[in-house]
Amino acid sequence: MSTSTGSAEMRAVQYRRVGAAPEVVTVPRPEPGPGQVLLKVTAAGVCHSDIAVMSRPADAFPYPLPLTLGHEGAGTVAALGDGVTGLDIGDPVAVYGPWGCGQCLMCAQGKENYCLRAQELGIRPPGLGAPGAIAEYLLVDDARHLVPLGDLDPVAAVPLTDAGLTPYHAIKMSLPKLVPGSSAVVIGTGGLGHVAVQLLRALSPARVIALDVSDEKLELARRVGAHETVLSDADAADRVRALTDGVGAQVVLDFVGAPPTVATATACAAVEGDVTIVGIGGGSAAVGFGTIAFDAAVRAPYWGTRAELIEVLDLARAGAVDVHVETYSLDDAPLAYERLRAGRITGRAVILPGG
Amino acid sequence: MSTSTGSAEMRAVQYRRVGAAPEVVTVPRPEPGPGQVLLKVTAAGVCHSDIAVMSRPADAFPYPLPLTLGHEGAGTVAALGDGVTGLDIGDPVAVYGPWGCGQCLMCAQGKENYCLRAQELGIRPPGLGAPGAIAEYLLVDDARHLVPLGDLDPVAAVPLTDAGLTPYHAIKMSLPKLVPGSSAVVIGTGGLGHVAVQLLRALSPARVIALDVSDEKLELARRVGAHETVLSDADAADRVRALTDGVGAQVVLDFVGAPPTVATATACAAVEGDVTIVGIGGGSAAVGFGTIAFDAAVRAPYWGTRAELIEVLDLARAGAVDVHVETYSLDDAPLAYERLRAGRITGRAVILPGG
Amino acid sequence: MSTSTGSAEMRAVQYRRVGAAPEVVTVPRPEPGPGQVLLKVTAAGVCHSDIAVMSRPADAFPYPLPLTLGHEGAGTVAALGDGVTGLDIGDPVAVYGPWGCGQCLMCAQGKENYCLRAQELGIRPPGLGAPGAIAEYLLVDDARHLVPLGDLDPVAAVPLTDAGLTPYHAIKMSLPKLVPGSSAVVIGTGGLGHVAVQLLRALSPARVIALDVSDEKLELARRVGAHETVLSDADAADRVRALTDGVGAQVVLDFVGAPPTVATATACAAVEGDVTIVGIGGGSAAVGFGTIAFDAAVRAPYWGTRAELIEVLDLARAGAVDVHVETYSLDDAPLAYERLRAGRITGRAVILPGG
Amino acid sequence: MSTSTGSAEMRAVQYRRVGAAPEVVTVPRPEPGPGQVLLKVTAAGVCHSDIAVMSRPADAFPYPLPLTLGHEGAGTVAALGDGVTGLDIGDPVAVYGPWGCGQCLMCAQGKENYCLRAQELGIRPPGLGAPGAIAEYLLVDDARHLVPLGDLDPVAAVPLTDAGLTPYHAIKMSLPKLVPGSSAVVIGTGGLGHVAVQLLRALSPARVIALDVSDEKLELARRVGAHETVLSDADAADRVRALTDGVGAQVVLDFVGAPPTVATATACAAVEGDVTIVGIGGGSAAVGFGTIAFDAAVRAPYWGTRAELIEVLDLARAGAVDVHVETYSLDDAPLAYERLRAGRITGRAVILPGG
Repeated sequence: MSTSTGSAEMRAVQYRRVGAAPEVVTVPRPEPGPGQVLLKVTAAGVCHSDIAVMSRPADAFPYPLPLTLGHEGAGTVAALGDGVTGLDIGDPVAVYGPWGCGQCLMCAQGKENYCLRAQELGIRPPGLGAPGAIAEYLLVDDARHLVPLGDLDPVAAVPLTDAGLTPYHAIKMSLPKLVPGSSAVVIGTGGLGHVAVQLLRALSPARVIALDVSDEKLELARRVGAHETVLSDADAADRVRALTDGVGAQVVLDFVGAPPTVATATACAAVEGDVTIVGIGGGSAAVGFGTIAFDAAVRAPYWGTRAELIEVLDLARAGAVDVHVETYSLDDAPLAYERLRAGRITGRAVILPGG
Repeated sequence: MSTSTGSAEMRAVQYRRVGAAPEVVTVPRPEPGPGQVLLKVTAAGVCHSDIAVMSRPADAFPYPLPLTLGHEGAGTVAALGDGVTGLDIGDPVAVYGPWGCGQCLMCAQGKENYCLRAQELGIRPPGLGAPGAIAEYLLVDDARHLVPLGDLDPVAAVPLTDAGLTPYHAIKMSLPKLVPGSSAVVIGTGGLGHVAVQLLRALSPARVIALDVSDEKLELARRVGAHETVLSDADAADRVRALTDGVGAQVVLDFVGAPPTVATATACAAVEGDVTIVGIGGGSAAVGFGTIAFDAAVRAPYWGTRAELIEVLDLARAGAVDVHVETYSLDDAPLAYERLRAGRITGRAVILPGG
Repeated sequence: MSTSTGSAEMRAVQYRRVGAAPEVVTVPRPEPGPGQVLLKVTAAGVCHSDIAVMSRPADAFPYPLPLTLGHEGAGTVAALGDGVTGLDIGDPVAVYGPWGCGQCLMCAQGKENYCLRAQELGIRPPGLGAPGAIAEYLLVDDARHLVPLGDLDPVAAVPLTDAGLTPYHAIKMSLPKLVPGSSAVVIGTGGLGHVAVQLLRALSPARVIALDVSDEKLELARRVGAHETVLSDADAADRVRALTDGVGAQVVLDFVGAPPTVATATACAAVEGDVTIVGIGGGSAAVGFGTIAFDAAVRAPYWGTRAELIEVLDLARAGAVDVHVETYSLDDAPLAYERLRAGRITGRAVILPGG
Repeated sequence: MSTSTGSAEMRAVQYRRVGAAPEVVTVPRPEPGPGQVLLKVTAAGVCHSDIAVMSRPADAFPYPLPLTLGHEGAGTVAALGDGVTGLDIGDPVAVYGPWGCGQCLMCAQGKENYCLRAQELGIRPPGLGAPGAIAEYLLVDDARHLVPLGDLDPVAAVPLTDAGLTPYHAIKMSLPKLVPGSSAVVIGTGGLGHVAVQLLRALSPARVIALDVSDEKLELARRVGAHETVLSDADAADRVRALTDGVGAQVVLDFVGAPPTVATATACAAVEGDVTIVGIGGGSAAVGFGTIAFDAAVRAPYWGTRAELIEVLDLARAGAVDVHVETYSLDDAPLAYERLRAGRITGRAVILPGG
């Protein structure tokens, strides 16, 4: 079934020229082809990684321009391409962003974030190559990339599609290590980090130790459930050792990923611990005999799986995770990016294209 | 892209009336709708469960009639519905049979065999509700249900889509228990069982103990790799205990599932063992305090996941599994069913609709 | 180092004759041999399974008589046998009860509850064959069977060595299934069950559904954290299905284990769910094709591992589990058994031999 | 039970002075204290890590001198200390080397290689702090550190206690990633590496790709089962990528651990792969965003667990692993070390103190 979407144009926020600020422009409204779904966007998140993308020089810019921004999206079904079943016009949904081919061994397990063929086939996430969610309408390439929102507030839920899913993925793989008596260290308690603290509390009995560079930032960590807070400086790893009877932390999540935080993360890890570097701050851990506790595993993941997005939304439904959100109209989206770049957003900026 | 398939009719093997034998009939050749794929069938497997389905009385028959048979299928891509990408005309593929909705928590992990919405949405596997593979052409509802065959011989590979995938699924979940020094019991060494013996040998260092009712049948088990064989009678469990120093088997797979074999399976299980009832012979295990070894887990699975099908075909590609096959033309498919019902098929009967 | 324990006698509560009530008697105080440890008992738990043992007829009584009762014990180190290291006189400890050989494949993983050689070597738990903890002193066969209590109140902690460890073991193996959006059913919310509700809340984000036969009992379940309560009758499974959108529960723990509760447990299970029968009420589940959801695994475990006891005590240290306790002097221990048999103990009776 | 061992002296091979060669000396024969076991050594392995230890300067030498060498030992029970049960004089056994306290959370799971208290309590492995196995008799601190050999040839089996256990531990944790169609890379096919190739073949269906610096060394890898061999140079990672359709290897084991091999290992890893650095060649991997495939986990383990030693001996019993061995008398042990240092030992040197 295909449904007319009424009008032929829409407004969108685009990055049009390397080095320029994002702009609000009017572009053709997309029509869903076979198997595709058109969403009327209700909420779209603004993410630090967009800033990172827009900071790349022209000769290293990875996507075609202009690029409609926004890889966190929620909306209602506006039109269904031919052959789409299981969805109705008006259904509220969130978008699973890391699109893959759907058929390779990774996609067959719902790990589309690790699709083996995406690069070869030119498949890219919305806002990171494909037209993104900061627009009145978003074209979704396949119905499988939509998760029903039900009663969830889309404004509160939309950051969970990345700022929730990414730490959830990082934590979920480490849950077997978070037994009673264990400790989890969260380095960087901002956007993703303050979600991670909540996820750790909801998912495990571990003691949560939060690290950040100021007591003001640590106050947020305490408020969302951290048991202990430690200033993130050169002595931080020693203080984590002291808090853990010399054993170290079974799980360390670094949401900064800069050289000094990665060094702290490495030094904090317990034997058989997990060190997961989520932040893209240019740091890397040195892992070898004598440089880190035995069998401590270090890795750097990317986003999360389809099943994990369903689970993190279920966690929000149970009231276990709450992202602090500032809302902006579509016209003010460029301002939101400006404020984010200046470090003036607390929590997550969310654009309301219909607002 | 849509491609004309030339002619308007095809031959198919249908179960048309409860109690009747399957018949070769001429029916309209399907056209692929958006997202669908039409296969020219190269090989289709004949399975015991078709006999079970055709044995059900009219008032308990679960599917609409007539029903084109065949839930094991392989073919080449004959036509692509609108919106299908990643496949080309002529590509050789195998069909993943347990179709699901593609979107629920189970399908999001590729466990379409356990789709939470299939029943509600009326989604059924080919040959088990939807038109099946024993026909010149097969309509596949979504490209994700196809796995590339590459160089694999479709005749040898097609039984792996069920007779390989089902034991593979059963074994894969138990692999952590199959450490060196462990034992795996296979009860019933026919179609699925003789594949299971090979899979156990390829996937684990466990000692494989095969049980069947005659030494003739056990000869096949020995030939495909069983370390020990035991006649399946009332003393079988005692003999398994004796072979395992009184410990029992860490994994027991019952491909018969009748009351006496299930009793043997239960009695064979080691502490923390897995007992998996694959056969649909009407038996059920009594599990409680004192009726089975502590923490031995008993379950009855169904078919397998999309990733598992990819893996089992990779195993065939490595030469690690080989199904004994008898081939029949489409016209002789009713004969194949007749011989299967009479217990006169060794291994698997495969229909070659183009032959 | 061996230390004299001063006096030569002690009081103990013994089951001396099949059919008789337990008695307080004076017996020789044991001396620790090489590798053994003598504890001055501070607290010892009274358990339903003692009643079950004392109900067995003379010709099926499994242990030598007289038998000093008590398989839940806590105390302080009173004397060390030759060769014991790592412990000091006066250290407060809890006793890991399911003693094994220490050397087999199971014991090498700390699963002494499943020791492969205990029966052959005649090794038995204290209070269940070996002299038990309801006495002034307890002889522990090896220092590895002691877990430091630190600051934990021994009276509150001692029931955790069985009434805590047993549900912890049952739950821990199922944690991977208790993702957000999942449900866990607890049948029977008494001694072990009301601990299980607390453990599920502390260890997982699952929704906890408690079943018991009266609203009065369910009130306790709600108080310790159950999200939903359901009367345990013939319709209970239907109500669990309704509460779970027809999916069923991913984990079902049956602390009653009688035929009707096991039937409910089986009917509640979701596809791929775990059904764990902890209660010894004589019921057994029928597991086969069509009798239970696909790949739902049914098992009956026994007690728990050494590492799990360390973990459950760490959980108590974090304040996450709290057993309701009634205390009795050693002289009143027979009264505690009498009241337990009459169903008049709420939570757990704990004997204070020094009180 | 304590048994006289007859004579009061024995010969042993000791490292007596930093910088000197090991010497054959006569020392007092030890007597087993309570809980201890005296072995008459039948075979003891000579290991590269002894060379590494003896290469350390005096101010960084970690153990008291003189040090009896040998951390791989097998023998027969010569005397039992008081309180030891479950063993008889004459029983053939292998020694589990990484001794721990037996009581901490790690030891409670048999992971004594990661004992939390060994350092604090001064517990050290035989040959690495405690008197080692290259002597006529070896004192074992606790019966739990012995694994029955049964019919296994002690000369063939003794290297498995380290050169078998260490790669087994590294491989076992990665088995879930070694599905059909996966690849495992082994860098360095000497002592441990050629065992790793055999273990991978016995335990998994993965394709094994061996890397070493000469075709002569790779010939051994092919002989013990490697599917592919690649010269270990600057292009090696590219060749592994080419052999794996660009995906990389799901498991990479580096038995050299030098900077160039670690760089190759890192570059070979597939998304979600495991990179395990076993060799102590001074290299370390840089792990961060963009430096390695997503979610590839890098770690450096140490030795293995008690259960894993039982399992690796069971694997030898099944004929699945075979270490090439050169034997030497006790008097020739210094020569064996000299030849090992010169790179002139193929496989493993084993000392026969009774030969």
